[in-house]
Amino acid sequence: MHGRLTHMDWGVAPGRWGEPRTSSHTVGDALDPRTLAFAHAHLGPAGSAPAPKEPRVDPSRLSDDRVGELFAGIQARTDDDARARLSRGMSYVNLLSWRSDEPVRVPDAVLFPRSHEQVLAILSVCSTERIAVVPVGGGTSVTGGIDTPESDAVVAVSMDRMRSVLDFDEESALVTVEAGITGPELESFLNPRGWTLGHFPQSFERASIGGYIAARSSGQSSSGYGRIEDLLIGAHVATPVGTWDVGGYPAQSSGPDLRHLVLGSEGALGIVTSAQLRVRARPTLREYTASILPGDFAAAASAVRALTRSPLRPTVMRASDPAETEALLTMSAPRGVTGWAFATYVRLRRARPGSLIILGFESTSESTVGAMRAFARETLGERGAVSIGNGPGRAWERGRFRGPYQRDALIDAGYLVETFETIVPWSQLKATHERLSNAARNALGSRAYVMAHISHSYDVGASLYFTVLAGGRSDPSESAQQWRRAKATIMDALVDSGAAISHHHGVGRDHLTWFGLSIDGVSTDVLRRVKASVDPRGIMNPGALVPGQGGGP
Amino acid sequence: MHGRLTHMDWGVAPGRWGEPRTSSHTVGDALDPRTLAFAHAHLGPAGSAPAPKEPRVDPSRLSDDRVGELFAGIQARTDDDARARLSRGMSYVNLLSWRSDEPVRVPDAVLFPRSHEQVLAILSVCSTERIAVVPVGGGTSVTGGIDTPESDAVVAVSMDRMRSVLDFDEESALVTVEAGITGPELESFLNPRGWTLGHFPQSFERASIGGYIAARSSGQSSSGYGRIEDLLIGAHVATPVGTWDVGGYPAQSSGPDLRHLVLGSEGALGIVTSAQLRVRARPTLREYTASILPGDFAAAASAVRALTRSPLRPTVMRASDPAETEALLTMSAPRGVTGWAFATYVRLRRARPGSLIILGFESTSESTVGAMRAFARETLGERGAVSIGNGPGRAWERGRFRGPYQRDALIDAGYLVETFETIVPWSQLKATHERLSNAARNALGSRAYVMAHISHSYDVGASLYFTVLAGGRSDPSESAQQWRRAKATIMDALVDSGAAISHHHGVGRDHLTWFGLSIDGVSTDVLRRVKASVDPRGIMNPGALVPGQGGGP
Repeated sequence: MHGRLTHMDWGVAPGRWGEPRTSSHTVGDALDPRTLAFAHAHLGPAGSAPAPKEPRVDPSRLSDDRVGELFAGIQARTDDDARARLSRGMSYVNLLSWRSDEPVRVPDAVLFPRSHEQVLAILSVCSTERIAVVPVGGGTSVTGGIDTPESDAVVAVSMDRMRSVLDFDEESALVTVEAGITGPELESFLNPRGWTLGHFPQSFERASIGGYIAARSSGQSSSGYGRIEDLLIGAHVATPVGTWDVGGYPAQSSGPDLRHLVLGSEGALGIVTSAQLRVRARPTLREYTASILPGDFAAAASAVRALTRSPLRPTVMRASDPAETEALLTMSAPRGVTGWAFATYVRLRRARPGSLIILGFESTSESTVGAMRAFARETLGERGAVSIGNGPGRAWERGRFRGPYQRDALIDAGYLVETFETIVPWSQLKATHERLSNAARNALGSRAYVMAHISHSYDVGASLYFTVLAGGRSDPSESAQQWRRAKATIMDALVDSGAAISHHHGVGRDHLTWFGLSIDGVSTDVLRRVKASVDPRGIMNPGALVPGQGGGP
Repeated sequence: MHGRLTHMDWGVAPGRWGEPRTSSHTVGDALDPRTLAFAHAHLGPAGSAPAPKEPRVDPSRLSDDRVGELFAGIQARTDDDARARLSRGMSYVNLLSWRSDEPVRVPDAVLFPRSHEQVLAILSVCSTERIAVVPVGGGTSVTGGIDTPESDAVVAVSMDRMRSVLDFDEESALVTVEAGITGPELESFLNPRGWTLGHFPQSFERASIGGYIAARSSGQSSSGYGRIEDLLIGAHVATPVGTWDVGGYPAQSSGPDLRHLVLGSEGALGIVTSAQLRVRARPTLREYTASILPGDFAAAASAVRALTRSPLRPTVMRASDPAETEALLTMSAPRGVTGWAFATYVRLRRARPGSLIILGFESTSESTVGAMRAFARETLGERGAVSIGNGPGRAWERGRFRGPYQRDALIDAGYLVETFETIVPWSQLKATHERLSNAARNALGSRAYVMAHISHSYDVGASLYFTVLAGGRSDPSESAQQWRRAKATIMDALVDSGAAISHHHGVGRDHLTWFGLSIDGVSTDVLRRVKASVDPRGIMNPGALVPGQGGGP
């Protein structure tokens, strides 16, 4: 009905992140064979997983006529392809579900509003009719944030038709965009004008601004540009009770800042239809460097901490633990002068390689980059770091969005590959790193490869981002179960250590149990009341945010 | 009852900011006679105002026995002096009320809890008994935030006995303090250990950390250290329904950030009893410079904007409009080399002096200060700024907390003196500055002196801080009426321009009407629901935050 979209419209085949270089902005390379070789060497051969397949989809509980009547004038689809595609996100478990024969829950219709008013109309109708609504931006949630909830009727609201730039106040460095716009689209608007948002999460190529806001995202250049909450100045939100405008000031002391209810709202408090964002001068100078710091991960953390606490902090900072350092260097061993320097270093130290530290310096000013570079060199130098040249840093920058493509290939080859992340104060970093590494290893078996890095750091603490590699099961459903069990063990350990449920992946459905354990009763009731205020019938993304609330309206 | 405190316990006489140098940390000088001379020259003689007097206070509606019974084990006072002192803040209207014969509303008792548990007990009892509660930290609100509401019974809860440092995690740069602690007390703990909070609002000498949080404060060094919301990592809050813990992570994407409901909560959602704060290395290097930038205020704003948008931004930035520049230079005309440079500059330009720009550079690193200084010099230099040396900058730093003392003296001399402030995006700064300057002049008469500065700037906008000087009335109540009328006109213009109700003074009772006009119906309902969740009987500081709610529980 209403005109069928082709695969070309979606851009990618379902059940995969996509083919490298499908997007005009992509920098994803084809998978380096050394990645597979590394997995094979550490984990043994894993066979292969079935390819993504046409899913078995229950018939829609909303007839085309009913959809046309309820949502008159709004583009809609009820075909299996659209409903399956908009039924889940991009977690490992989500991706496996495309390869499995088990049935998945899918929405009864997919709606494509073109304006704030159309979104308002949809939410009003769904509230009256008690139809659950799942907002979908880029569809890249890795926490089950857009998985179809159990409910009598569910519609997915795609923000795909709301991707315009609405206003650009260049003097104030404020851009206003429809929330369905993706990072590459916004950068394509800003870059030729000399500006950038500077928000580059690994989902950059596909995620939408609305998704960033709903999941409280943070990008790889967060040291320089801040998190999405540092970039969001105001939001225009459609809710079942009407329009909700929050923020709009550079800063204020006019009561509680309700932007921070919309940030992290996980689609459960309304749909952000447009956002006012702070932009920065696009850096004309970009340098990336790599060093190896001897010693354990605590030494690397201490170096990053010292770098973070200066106004001259690098724009990008990433410090890998020894396990990740070994993996990265094996997977992309430096050659030439760098390789020689690195080999010499390793020979002299006769030790594990220490921690790979990648730094990026971005600015429009030569003297600023110079000051940043000098400060970093001094800080790392006095800790005995050995530069391995600009090559690995540049390689990291070129491959910074490659992770999800590699995951596709590793899943194809039958491996379990997933990430989890948290944040703690500096004083708890070492203990939390060890505890979570061990929890993951214990949960996944002795042959699992568990590695971590710091990629977002603050004066008072830092994130820990873990990647796990293990042999999968031949049945994708069993692999999913294997990971679900491991993840539960890891999350228990995480909550028990007092670490945050998530630094930048969000809550969604996958983290809801542990989110509920991590906040107190008063906070839970406050969230429940806020939800009741803006969504009295409980139709908005049920089960994705408020602990103790069921799946459906 | 329960032991009477003397004036020594309060530190200062009521109805005034205080005597310069009463606090160990004060940097307030005696009032420069040139300030009065300036007022006299521009506004004419104003006679004098009556001195603060013993207020006429209604008898307490809670007997000593009743207080002892309700709040067993908690220190309490019901004498006139204590009740009068804790009955209001430090706005111009508040200060005038001490000099007037009109009766003022005062609380029926003042309570001095010593622990989170005692605060919880107070709120539980007051909720059951429907007694309104006004939390009082340093008592420096300038927006009527602690003015006694109209209610059957009211208690003021002084945080004066909760001023300890509870924990210091030096590795994470996190200090945990009881919320009654003042800035000087916290700095006295931090400074010898090499740390600072870096939060220096003009109320620094007397305000409490809890007050900063409740009013969403910002200090004079906000460019370097950020606003209170950038410093608050976690808060432990007592509410009528129990303990509410918010935050506690360096950053997170675990749903809405409820810290931002406590920040700006104006005492209406509970009482912050302790706070976890981010601290910074105490700068060992501190330089303050002053320049005069030719041209109008827009030129100065443009220079500040360019400075703000660099990581090398100064720690302190303040740019005065031509009216304030003239006033400051007249009140403290530079002497010696600086005076010669300035006189030469004015002679050459044959014009109004332009804008006085004061910059501060603070760091522990010589090279960082050097990079900041060089960047500032280049940015101002290419705009034609003329340095007037370090003297005026240093003088500003020495006198940075002097404003409230000067206000006392100007009120003594019969002048109307008050401030108001807002924040707008850069593109609206010029128009808003002109509109509000004109609104204030029109409201206060042609002889009023209205001046403004930017002292808090952001990538996307800046605050505007206005000071007005006018001849007062001989009757303090009439002077108060004169200002109330003018303020209403100014606030109408402010809301009409789309500017924020406040950048750092807060909402309180004085701004509630305009706060209600500045947020939408959904936001108002969200605030109402949050309030109902944590304060179901509406006892917490009624009338100070939620638009449309009455004064009492």
